[in-house]
Amino acid sequence: MPYVNIKITREGTTTGETSTTVKEKQALIKGVSDLLFEVLGKPHNSTFVVIDEVETDNWGVGGIPVTEHRKQAAVKTG
Amino acid sequence: MPYVNIKITREGTTTGETSTTVKEKQALIKGVSDLLFEVLGKPHNSTFVVIDEVETDNWGVGGIPVTEHRKQAAVKTG
Amino acid sequence: MPYVNIKITREGTTTGETSTTVKEKQALIKGVSDLLFEVLGKPHNSTFVVIDEVETDNWGVGGIPVTEHRKQAAVKTG
Amino acid sequence: MPYVNIKITREGTTTGETSTTVKEKQALIKGVSDLLFEVLGKPHNSTFVVIDEVETDNWGVGGIPVTEHRKQAAVKTG
Amino acid sequence: MPYVNIKITREGTTTGETSTTVKEKQALIKGVSDLLFEVLGKPHNSTFVVIDEVETDNWGVGGIPVTEHRKQAAVKTG
Amino acid sequence: MPYVNIKITREGTTTGETSTTVKEKQALIKGVSDLLFEVLGKPHNSTFVVIDEVETDNWGVGGIPVTEHRKQAAVKTG
Repeated sequence: MPYVNIKITREGTTTGETSTTVKEKQALIKGVSDLLFEVLGKPHNSTFVVIDEVETDNWGVGGIPVTEHRKQAAVKTG
Repeated sequence: MPYVNIKITREGTTTGETSTTVKEKQALIKGVSDLLFEVLGKPHNSTFVVIDEVETDNWGVGGIPVTEHRKQAAVKTG
Repeated sequence: MPYVNIKITREGTTTGETSTTVKEKQALIKGVSDLLFEVLGKPHNSTFVVIDEVETDNWGVGGIPVTEHRKQAAVKTG
Repeated sequence: MPYVNIKITREGTTTGETSTTVKEKQALIKGVSDLLFEVLGKPHNSTFVVIDEVETDNWGVGGIPVTEHRKQAAVKTG
Repeated sequence: MPYVNIKITREGTTTGETSTTVKEKQALIKGVSDLLFEVLGKPHNSTFVVIDEVETDNWGVGGIPVTEHRKQAAVKTG
Repeated sequence: MPYVNIKITREGTTTGETSTTVKEKQALIKGVSDLLFEVLGKPHNSTFVVIDEVETDNWGVGGIPVTEHRKQAAVKTG
C-alpha cells in the first residue's frame, strides 16, 4: 500500500503544451506502480500515486521562482 | 498542535455535485478536530486540518488514473 | 481512496507514556476512516491513514521548538 | 538539497489583494533559501521551495474552516 | 526539478529482511528518476526522491493498523 | 496559520556532528517564523514549522542515494 506523491511544475514538456498531458500522467502513474511492484512486490491496486502540479511562481530554486529562471534562460539563448 | 492533511479526489459524492461541498468539508474539519481532542486531548484551536482536492487525472490506483476507473466502472454497470 | 496524514509531536498524552500509544493510534485510524465513510461514503479498505510522530525539537510554534514551550510551561506552573 | 513546503491560505495580506502576490512569493523563496544557506550551508541552487495556496474553505482551525473564522472576526469588529 | 515522495511501510519484502534494503531503495530512486526523464525529460540531477518508511502501527487501511492486518492474514493462512 | 515543512538529509553540517544540532533547528524555526511574519504578517504563535530529517540512503538525487554521492565526492577529493 505505497503512497507516492509526485510534485512537478505546471509546465508543458511537449511543444505547444502548457502543462503535463493526460498521456504523460498515465505514463507516470503506470511507471511508478510497475516499479513498486517489480522492486517491492507491491500490488498495483493498493498503490496510490498523486501528481501535484505547482505554478512556476510557486516553485523556487536557486533562491528565485522558476518563472524567473525561464525568463533568464530565454534571454541567454536569445 | 496536530497537522492533518486529507487528500481526496475532486469528485462529488452527492448527486449533482462535482466536488466535495462546503458542508462536507466543515464536517471533515470538525470530525478530525473532535477526534484529536477526544483521543489525544489536543485543543481544537491548535489543530490544523488541510483538505487537498486532486483531479481524477492526477490520482492513480491500480496503475491507471481514477478517471479511467470511473469510465471502466460505468461500462460495467452499463 | 483518501489519503490522510496526521502529524503529531512525539509526546505521551497519558501519564507515564512518552509517545502516542498503540491503542491511541488504533483509535485515530478507526476514527478517521469512519469519518470519511460517514461524510463522503469512502470505503474503509481504500482509505489510507498515516501517522507521523515528530520530535519536539523538530516542531516549532511561536518561533521556538515545542521542547522550549514545555520547559517554559513547566516553569510557569512551578 | 533541502525541500521546503510552505502551505498558506489563499488570502491577500495586502489591501486589495485576494491572494499572495508574486513579490511576496519571491520574498518567501529568497528568505527560506538564504536561511538554509546561513544556518546549514545548503547551496541555493539545490534548495527547492514549494508554496501551496489553500482555499479558506479547505483549511480548518478551531474545528471550523478559516472562511467561518473570517466571518466571525468581521462580525466582532463590526 | 520534480520532488517525489515515496511512503512505504517499514517491512521487509525479502525473506529475513525487516525493512526495505539499501539495494531496493537504490532501485526505487533510479527507477523514479529514469521515469521522470523518459516521460517528462526532467534531468536526473534536479530530481529529488525521498523515501519515508512508516511503522506498521502508524499506517492504517480498512480502519485498522497494518500490524493488525498482518496478524489476521497470518491466522487465516494458519 | 502557515504550515512549513523542511525536509533535510540527516547529516551534520558542523564538524563532528552527525545530524542537525538543536541550535541549528532553533535557528531554522525562528528564521522561518520571522520570515512569514515579515512578508505576510502571519503571527508567530499560529505558524507551525516541522523539520523532517531523512537518512541519506532514503534521499535520491541524480538517480542515486545521497550516501553514494558522498562516497563519490570523497574519492574525488581523495
